[in-house]
Amino acid sequence: MSPVFIQQARCGNARAGLLHTKHGVVETPVFMPVGTQATVKSLASGDLEALDAPIILANTYHLAMRPGSGLVRSLGGLHSFMSWPRAILTDSGGYQVFSHKGRRKIDDDGVTFQSHVDGSRQRLTPESAMAIQADLGSDIAMAFDECPPSDAPVKDLRRAMSRTTAWAKRCVETQPAPGQLRFGIVQGAIDLDLRREHLAEIAPLPFDGMALGGLSVGEPPATMHAVVREIAPLMPEDRPRYLMGVGTPTDLLVAIAAGMDMFDCVMPTRSARNGRLFVRGGHINIANAVHGKDPAPVEEGCGCEACRRYSRAYLAHLFRVKEILYYRLATLHNLHHYLTLVRGARQAIIENRLPAYLAERGVAG
Amino acid sequence: MSPVFIQQARCGNARAGLLHTKHGVVETPVFMPVGTQATVKSLASGDLEALDAPIILANTYHLAMRPGSGLVRSLGGLHSFMSWPRAILTDSGGYQVFSHKGRRKIDDDGVTFQSHVDGSRQRLTPESAMAIQADLGSDIAMAFDECPPSDAPVKDLRRAMSRTTAWAKRCVETQPAPGQLRFGIVQGAIDLDLRREHLAEIAPLPFDGMALGGLSVGEPPATMHAVVREIAPLMPEDRPRYLMGVGTPTDLLVAIAAGMDMFDCVMPTRSARNGRLFVRGGHINIANAVHGKDPAPVEEGCGCEACRRYSRAYLAHLFRVKEILYYRLATLHNLHHYLTLVRGARQAIIENRLPAYLAERGVAG
Repeated sequence: MSPVFIQQARCGNARAGLLHTKHGVVETPVFMPVGTQATVKSLASGDLEALDAPIILANTYHLAMRPGSGLVRSLGGLHSFMSWPRAILTDSGGYQVFSHKGRRKIDDDGVTFQSHVDGSRQRLTPESAMAIQADLGSDIAMAFDECPPSDAPVKDLRRAMSRTTAWAKRCVETQPAPGQLRFGIVQGAIDLDLRREHLAEIAPLPFDGMALGGLSVGEPPATMHAVVREIAPLMPEDRPRYLMGVGTPTDLLVAIAAGMDMFDCVMPTRSARNGRLFVRGGHINIANAVHGKDPAPVEEGCGCEACRRYSRAYLAHLFRVKEILYYRLATLHNLHHYLTLVRGARQAIIENRLPAYLAERGVAG
Repeated sequence: MSPVFIQQARCGNARAGLLHTKHGVVETPVFMPVGTQATVKSLASGDLEALDAPIILANTYHLAMRPGSGLVRSLGGLHSFMSWPRAILTDSGGYQVFSHKGRRKIDDDGVTFQSHVDGSRQRLTPESAMAIQADLGSDIAMAFDECPPSDAPVKDLRRAMSRTTAWAKRCVETQPAPGQLRFGIVQGAIDLDLRREHLAEIAPLPFDGMALGGLSVGEPPATMHAVVREIAPLMPEDRPRYLMGVGTPTDLLVAIAAGMDMFDCVMPTRSARNGRLFVRGGHINIANAVHGKDPAPVEEGCGCEACRRYSRAYLAHLFRVKEILYYRLATLHNLHHYLTLVRGARQAIIENRLPAYLAERGVAG
């Protein structure tokens, strides 16, 4: 069996690699657009192909609620359902469930919660979370973990860590879909000792990759960066390293420099819908009156469909009158920005010039 | 100067022709997708190119309100603003203004109304409606007309007709944009005598094309069909004939058989967004539970992006969870259906087999 992950180049702690999945090879570092309900909001699968995204993320919790994982399975799995021929990573559903404050009850076996759709009583366990992901047929399934608030007392953090470890062991005992990879998740909030301790528990388990969970959940960016800089280099070298739910362009560059390989975040897609469009060195807010008369594209030289064909003035008009087309064009632009940024970092690693790449973007690696 | 309209073939009263505009030749009969606010809702200009739409409609009233015709002009006109290299027809704004019941006051010079955006007092006259269209730089500008309710008393209809005639004469005296064509509008509701009378007033004016207005505004389809069958053949042969705001697939086929050349309607686009998807011989409602598990496309053999890549089950999921992608896929399908239907009718006219084409679709021409 060929290895899941091949490291191709290093530059400091940063790595460029190849992640082999059932649906193609993913060049890392990589940013994964978020397709919560089996669609990256406003985009068709053809749009994502045109953006050259090799892998996207889908949310187990949302798909389990609607349309249901059994239905997706009966229609040939998530790839077939959403007509996406490339790789898919599914989260375990845990994060969504634990974000339902007051509407969920955790025990050592799993978690009981209310559906956000119809209020019905639902339950997720390590076994059922993995079974749902097997039904969906994703290329990478995430272990079912407990993600406590980052400011929780240490005893709560420790209890969540030990539950996550116990659940991780149960996850690897389940039957994956054919060819499905599985990643473990390291918790421990922003406490470096807890992070090291939990990493030591998760790393020996037979996961194909390793993730840092529970970051970018409200702590200051500098704190998160410090955790990633410290922990990333300690994670197994021979497996892909995934920083969950992160982040801003700066966050990505810092984490890449620290040795992380994979990222997902709703920021580019959600910000786009709210009018925030990323440009080199920052962003613009398309709602600002100054853009309403501007014939220039969002970013000169950008190769996305929005910038190739339309002006800021046109996007500002569409945004103001709430036309559906705005959401797609803005999403295409922001994802193009993120994917290009991360591909550029990969190339810089391969060419051993990542520090310069970061410095040009005002980031201290 | 080459003629604006060339008749290529006839089949009974039906015609196939070529309409020459500043932005390309339009093969007729033709259906024009409606792009009210400088976008066909949910679609990019590239989508419309992929659908092979040679001409779209934009609404003068909406664009005058937002973003304003002066701004569009300063950005190079509507084609440049919305990145659409093919033909555009603009309506005159009259229809939208007259639909504002109780918020508008008509006099012989024009109409005063309140903006639907900010309630501000606005005025449109034949001269200003044409000036706005000249600013927008559309390929075809419509005369500013008065469109009364179809059940208005005859004296109101007559007053609207004489105003429309007086306004038409003022419209042709204004300065168009370079190369801009202008079409006159025949009113008269569903009264055949009034229609003939008004046609006799409008036809002698130096318009490049002739439209029937005030139909499909609430009267029974059979009544509308009777008016079109009677009046279309009386309209000038050497100019394109445009049936405004019509209609269902059956309406289009009946009107094509009667000799009409151009059509616009929000039906395919608006219905799409409401879940109604056209298929040969009728439509489906994607919200019906039966589609939720159906792996088949909306229509077998349909060449649109929605049918080439996605199942009814996927579209039903997107519709149910209100994902933005649904609106684009559904709109692509319905416009593909309409455009294909009308292109098929054109081909049938050229091949002198239109009656069979209609009969196959259950329509008596």
